[in-house]
Amino acid sequence: MANIKPSLAKGTRDFTPSEMEKRNYIFNVLRAIFKKFGYSEIQTPSFENLSTLTGKYGEEGDKLIFKILNSGDYLSKVPDGALADKASNKLIPYISEKALRYDLTVPFARFVVMHQHEITLPFKRFQIQPVWRADRPQRGRYREFYQCDVDVVGSSSLLNEAEFILVYQEALEVLGLTDFTIKVNNRKVLTGIAEVIGKPELIVDMTVAIDKLDKIGLEGVNSELLERGFTPEDLAVLKPIILLEGTNQDKLASLREVLASSATGMTGIAELEEVFAYLTRFGKAELLEKVVEVDITLARGLNYYTGCIFEVKTNQVAMGSIGGGGRYDDLTGMFGLKDLTGVGISFGADRIYDVLEELNLFPASSAASTEVLIVNFEKEAESYTLPLLARLREAGVAAELYPAANKLKKQMSYADDKKIPYVLLVGEEEIQSGLLSLKNMATGEQQKASVEQLIVLLKNGTAI
Amino acid sequence: MANIKPSLAKGTRDFTPSEMEKRNYIFNVLRAIFKKFGYSEIQTPSFENLSTLTGKYGEEGDKLIFKILNSGDYLSKVPDGALADKASNKLIPYISEKALRYDLTVPFARFVVMHQHEITLPFKRFQIQPVWRADRPQRGRYREFYQCDVDVVGSSSLLNEAEFILVYQEALEVLGLTDFTIKVNNRKVLTGIAEVIGKPELIVDMTVAIDKLDKIGLEGVNSELLERGFTPEDLAVLKPIILLEGTNQDKLASLREVLASSATGMTGIAELEEVFAYLTRFGKAELLEKVVEVDITLARGLNYYTGCIFEVKTNQVAMGSIGGGGRYDDLTGMFGLKDLTGVGISFGADRIYDVLEELNLFPASSAASTEVLIVNFEKEAESYTLPLLARLREAGVAAELYPAANKLKKQMSYADDKKIPYVLLVGEEEIQSGLLSLKNMATGEQQKASVEQLIVLLKNGTAI
Repeated sequence: MANIKPSLAKGTRDFTPSEMEKRNYIFNVLRAIFKKFGYSEIQTPSFENLSTLTGKYGEEGDKLIFKILNSGDYLSKVPDGALADKASNKLIPYISEKALRYDLTVPFARFVVMHQHEITLPFKRFQIQPVWRADRPQRGRYREFYQCDVDVVGSSSLLNEAEFILVYQEALEVLGLTDFTIKVNNRKVLTGIAEVIGKPELIVDMTVAIDKLDKIGLEGVNSELLERGFTPEDLAVLKPIILLEGTNQDKLASLREVLASSATGMTGIAELEEVFAYLTRFGKAELLEKVVEVDITLARGLNYYTGCIFEVKTNQVAMGSIGGGGRYDDLTGMFGLKDLTGVGISFGADRIYDVLEELNLFPASSAASTEVLIVNFEKEAESYTLPLLARLREAGVAAELYPAANKLKKQMSYADDKKIPYVLLVGEEEIQSGLLSLKNMATGEQQKASVEQLIVLLKNGTAI
Repeated sequence: MANIKPSLAKGTRDFTPSEMEKRNYIFNVLRAIFKKFGYSEIQTPSFENLSTLTGKYGEEGDKLIFKILNSGDYLSKVPDGALADKASNKLIPYISEKALRYDLTVPFARFVVMHQHEITLPFKRFQIQPVWRADRPQRGRYREFYQCDVDVVGSSSLLNEAEFILVYQEALEVLGLTDFTIKVNNRKVLTGIAEVIGKPELIVDMTVAIDKLDKIGLEGVNSELLERGFTPEDLAVLKPIILLEGTNQDKLASLREVLASSATGMTGIAELEEVFAYLTRFGKAELLEKVVEVDITLARGLNYYTGCIFEVKTNQVAMGSIGGGGRYDDLTGMFGLKDLTGVGISFGADRIYDVLEELNLFPASSAASTEVLIVNFEKEAESYTLPLLARLREAGVAAELYPAANKLKKQMSYADDKKIPYVLLVGEEEIQSGLLSLKNMATGEQQKASVEQLIVLLKNGTAI
């Protein structure tokens, strides 16, 4: 084997122990909340048949799907012409029949269709798995990253929408965030607006433009709307909608006036009102004042969502959305199972990680696995330290004996580097007296304790 | 989008909620034990540079590595000749620079070399991730499967070997296995045997042959040894070694006689003895009688292991090894970091899953996520059931309200299919009295309880 200087594939990352602890902390918090709300975990394979993925993400998306080269003599079935052209795209179907998961949604749709006779509707699932995209890597954008999706299919009840707001709220609060906004909109309200203006065919242009309000302001939005085929009269109708202000109730009241002539628009408003009514019945009316915010400029994934749309932002750190989702009416149609409604949200795990890091919100314990290191003074002491180690572990204390009688300094820096909070010094005196010296690595303080006391101190977190 | 009948890529699997619960149960048990022994989790990317993986798994292995097609116009850099030949193998370097992880060992070696200035030795890590192999799929063999590896690098202490035996023992016992064997051998003992016979160059032939003792018996082994260049005199020397019997102490005593003239062989015996002495000092001497078994026919991964070798079998179910490992002295040499010793073991998660399934050892709770379903009798009752749902969840009880007032039968079969153990019937009478009816789905029994009582019953698992 030749020696090669090892490197990571472009756009990928290793996760060190402390990074893993933090990531697992986030996933475990989310997982516990999803389960408490009745969602079950599933996983799908890392690669799918290429035909399952192709055509689901638009032309640009198709290019970003990682294709897997067929095994064996993969060129044998290629017609001569296809090779001579050197046409990379045309050759793909002959040499690749598998591709890496690009998101969790399409594999979930395939899962639902393939398992439709085993699963009971409504089917509430969550899924936390990596996805892969052949994007140009840049700061914060990787070719391998985790998605975390929660969906329910087969239930049109708006209780589901309300519960997703509760899931977001509980998750972000448990993670320690104190100021965040859950924006909500409804696709039917957007449709209603386009109808009222008399340009239902321009709904996409309209939403693309007003979605940019935050970035380019009203003037910018207006000139883009004009470019996209709207008239100055349309802008006059749109202006109060775009600049909607006040409480959620105020906004819905204004919308109700403007959209009175659109049945679809009124349905959208009624849906938002029902979701809010659910929150109130849940005893969470205060969310409607502080956290949930009607935002009709919110239009993410418009071609996909058919009802409520969500997006979550933290107000504590400058960061894009840390989650989003909505209701869709045709998830599984692409695989031949029609009219199955669903609603789902996702959590942006990488961004949430960065937010918690910036706000210093990871629990201290999530950095360490071992709680106590027994210092190894001399091999002869092992007849004392090994039974001690066994007892600590039996009591459920994560413990290690340094595996050789190296210099104390080396052993202490091992504990330091591994962020082990305590070391146990077991010298001749300690063995004689049965009172061991426990040292807090952060403060340098020491205390003496018997093995029994030690276990209580470490288990209860009451050691100095 | 065309409707296509969806299918899984060959050799891959979906994991349904109940399968996920069981897999997570295994992984969580293992993870907790690894941490208690001081191992930290890491993860490496799903794909590596192809050059990182090529040449590490032998010629056959190279063929089984899934290669990822380069993105974009991947044919543009191919020299014309390489295409005209239609030589699949020669073309690979031009059109693929990335490949899917084939095992966890090579990426771990890369990790250690790349992070050598950040990590503190000894570095104790575990890793639970899928790997991919382009094997022909068959019963029990998948193209995507999980590996679960635990290693320590940078410590030559045999304490590590002893601790791995404890890790195996604790893990299998916690998982509910009652009868298993941890076989141990030492590469140096095998070297010693080949030396004593005077044919050190035939060590691989010798071990390949005696490794088959279980399958082909002594006669078979003998004829294979003759074919591979051993003489009848050699067989006479080998016979008592191959048929070694008695306790571990008996076996080591016999070996000590046979290998007296081989320094390497004697070192191997001394290493086994030290590992056993560690177990005794740990207070686990009983393992040496019931669980640990010296087996000099054990030779797995011979080209790789340099010291102790392990293999684990359950005696309760007919199944190949469910784990194995050993010490190696040159893990990172392939990436230019020499003389870093290590020792590691792995758990065969898929096989352990099958064993637990066959022995019915999965805990009942690992099938369900939701503990109680509130039946939805009528929308009007939601002003009562929603606050109730919120209270249950606040108390940490995984709970759902069926999202629509469908027929009772439909709601009950939802609970049944999802293996929800309890349903809560909240009709007019219950709302009036404040005493709710809790029904055990398995027994059909019902009991009345106030909300407060209910929470206690469900939290403590004391409901009927």
